Amino acid sequence: MTQIDEQPLKVALLGCGVVGTQVARLIIEQGADLTARIGRPLELVGIAVRSLDRPRPVKLQSLLTTDADALVSRGDIDIVIELIGGETDAGRLIRLAIDHGASVVTANKALLASQGESIFPAAERAGVDLYYEAAVAGAIPIIRPLRESLVGDSIQVVMGIVNGTTNYILDKMTTEGMDYQTALVQAQDLGYAEADPTADVEGHDAAAKAVLLASIAFHTWVSDSAVYCEGISRVMPGDIRAARDLDCVVKLLAVANTLDDGRISVRVHPTMVPNSHPLASVGGAYNAIFVEAAAAGRLMFVGPGAGGAPTASAVVGDLVTVARNRARGVVGPRQSVYADREVAPIGALRTRYFLRFRVTDEPGVLAAVASIFANHHISVQTVQQMPVDEAGSVARDVAELRMMTHVAGEDDLLDCVAALKAAPQVRSDVRFIRVEGI
Amino acid sequence: MTQIDEQPLKVALLGCGVVGTQVARLIIEQGADLTARIGRPLELVGIAVRSLDRPRPVKLQSLLTTDADALVSRGDIDIVIELIGGETDAGRLIRLAIDHGASVVTANKALLASQGESIFPAAERAGVDLYYEAAVAGAIPIIRPLRESLVGDSIQVVMGIVNGTTNYILDKMTTEGMDYQTALVQAQDLGYAEADPTADVEGHDAAAKAVLLASIAFHTWVSDSAVYCEGISRVMPGDIRAARDLDCVVKLLAVANTLDDGRISVRVHPTMVPNSHPLASVGGAYNAIFVEAAAAGRLMFVGPGAGGAPTASAVVGDLVTVARNRARGVVGPRQSVYADREVAPIGALRTRYFLRFRVTDEPGVLAAVASIFANHHISVQTVQQMPVDEAGSVARDVAELRMMTHVAGEDDLLDCVAALKAAPQVRSDVRFIRVEGI
Repeated sequence: MTQIDEQPLKVALLGCGVVGTQVARLIIEQGADLTARIGRPLELVGIAVRSLDRPRPVKLQSLLTTDADALVSRGDIDIVIELIGGETDAGRLIRLAIDHGASVVTANKALLASQGESIFPAAERAGVDLYYEAAVAGAIPIIRPLRESLVGDSIQVVMGIVNGTTNYILDKMTTEGMDYQTALVQAQDLGYAEADPTADVEGHDAAAKAVLLASIAFHTWVSDSAVYCEGISRVMPGDIRAARDLDCVVKLLAVANTLDDGRISVRVHPTMVPNSHPLASVGGAYNAIFVEAAAAGRLMFVGPGAGGAPTASAVVGDLVTVARNRARGVVGPRQSVYADREVAPIGALRTRYFLRFRVTDEPGVLAAVASIFANHHISVQTVQQMPVDEAGSVARDVAELRMMTHVAGEDDLLDCVAALKAAPQVRSDVRFIRVEGI
Repeated sequence: MTQIDEQPLKVALLGCGVVGTQVARLIIEQGADLTARIGRPLELVGIAVRSLDRPRPVKLQSLLTTDADALVSRGDIDIVIELIGGETDAGRLIRLAIDHGASVVTANKALLASQGESIFPAAERAGVDLYYEAAVAGAIPIIRPLRESLVGDSIQVVMGIVNGTTNYILDKMTTEGMDYQTALVQAQDLGYAEADPTADVEGHDAAAKAVLLASIAFHTWVSDSAVYCEGISRVMPGDIRAARDLDCVVKLLAVANTLDDGRISVRVHPTMVPNSHPLASVGGAYNAIFVEAAAAGRLMFVGPGAGGAPTASAVVGDLVTVARNRARGVVGPRQSVYADREVAPIGALRTRYFLRFRVTDEPGVLAAVASIFANHHISVQTVQQMPVDEAGSVARDVAELRMMTHVAGEDDLLDCVAALKAAPQVRSDVRFIRVEGI
């Protein structure tokens, strides 16, 4: 049916690590299918690598070069696939590609989150595509559904498990009662966490994805500096046990939602989620994105969040779309930022909170604590008073209070926490976790 | 940022029922947002209805007409939204719209499944778009993810719960032990099932969706006559109980998968699914699509499968995409059928089967039954022999055999069932259910 123009589209690949090798393999092995789907053949004309010394598949040897700038600047490249990661070189090369009229496919969430505000307009001015499905949640199709399928709707919430490393660690803490450090070391031993796990465990990776999800969902450029970011390194086994007692789990979520005043809230933090919520059961290295829209209702997308083959699937999906656009002389939908909504600071957040702290176990304490909450305009939904187990025996003079609030303001909550810490009846740190999905 | 061309794109709406009214409301109420997202305003110029006598929102009154043919033939319509359903009028009007150069958005799965083979090429020849996200699984974005996000991958399985009515009935049979007839009547009382439920309960609705899913996933036009279709009206409470005993549920699934010989199998039937499979927990009126692709791995998409607002969200999402294409003078990706894979008859299926039947309870019976399976090249994975409860007391002379096979051929299985029925030891009908997800 489809007529094939025999003139190939020239593709340059930057980076040949785990994902890059898979992408090259798919382009070469599935060439006939991709040609039929695009209407023109693809020709992989060069692969830029840092060093020629590492072993690579034989088929790729003749394509390798260490001069990425020269490859991108050839002038005849139709599409550049950027998979080298990092921000400095990747940013320069993507801009160079755009300046030379190439469309770009990238999986580089950190780069787009920090420099997207200038890179997307540059692509628009140059009349080229800039696609990045692989940058968020690996192989799960989420960019197109948000940008295209739901474009006629009004999105209210996008939240998800977008970092497999932290999901694995929290899973271990939940199902096996491990503490954070033990679970982290196990994740490192298994290759699920990097030697330097900061980007994952402190939430920076998830925050970059939150930038991209929120920007699309709310037709607004969200600056990465506007995203509140709190990782999992301070989550304690006691938090997890307390969540379990309330039929909840603790997940690291990226959340973007609309506030009543029209602003949006974009944040990453450990979150208590009821077991009845679809995100609660997403375990291990899986990712999941939950979307709530005014007309569509509640949707969820689940799949592998990382890994060479899944990420390569997303990259090659973008490659085919971009190539098809190129073959027809068109570009896909632009990054839409017309709504230009204000991102509220975390203090403006309104949600539910779970608090946990120790108090002197004597008459009148609950009344004193309750009045501190009331003074800060925070309505308490449930209170549990729990015995404190210390070194195998129940402590006599202290008890743990566990309190779930109704929806409250974050600034009020922080003031309330400060007041609790200063109260004579409170005998420990006051821990709180934000709650979603109730 | 985006420049707005002030010339509106003219939209004609055919049908103003539950979905149509919601679509009209979204177009009117979200006009400014849609304009910004498209780059041009939309103008709803007419709504074709069967009768002017039904009460409609005041805002829409001046747009109503009973002459759909005249509306579509005006010659200045950019986009026709077809929501009247049925095949005869809808088919004629869509062809008329295409002939007059309009792009089309439709939710009409039955029409596309039966006439898509000629309608899609007509749209391609005319250079117009034909979008239908709402035709499969309501608001769940599945057409774009399959057609675009996964276009670089090789899809192996698409299977899903794509009919809310039957999912509701099977849910009731599972959770409350109802029989089929009682659950159906309750579904009808609650408005979840039609007075004539045939299209839902006999699987025809799901089969039309299977046609569309399989066609996209396998780049092949699948004729609706090639789809094996078996509904839920013969599912018995005993089947559901037996599934539960094996930690499984019975779901009506639409399944499309590749066979080892390169052919594809497309079918709708009651299916036993293990509770550990993500489709097992999708209850009530929700829909879910599970996809397995060579590189992407296992993905799942969940959301409301029907209802006015969710369906309208999908329709308006398509409307925005089609309008954006129109404003730029381009069309989206065509229906891709280059692979032209053969659809295998149900007899060529290879899967696991669960069988249930009564036998004389005496020594040697299991050996006799096992040899019948062996004679038909069917390897048995597990056998359970269960007491038969008749009118409150355990029957003495019969037992129920429950057998799970390894992967076997459907033709062999049917021969085996026939042989079992003829065997002197078998004392009942021989029931079998196909098994997926193990």
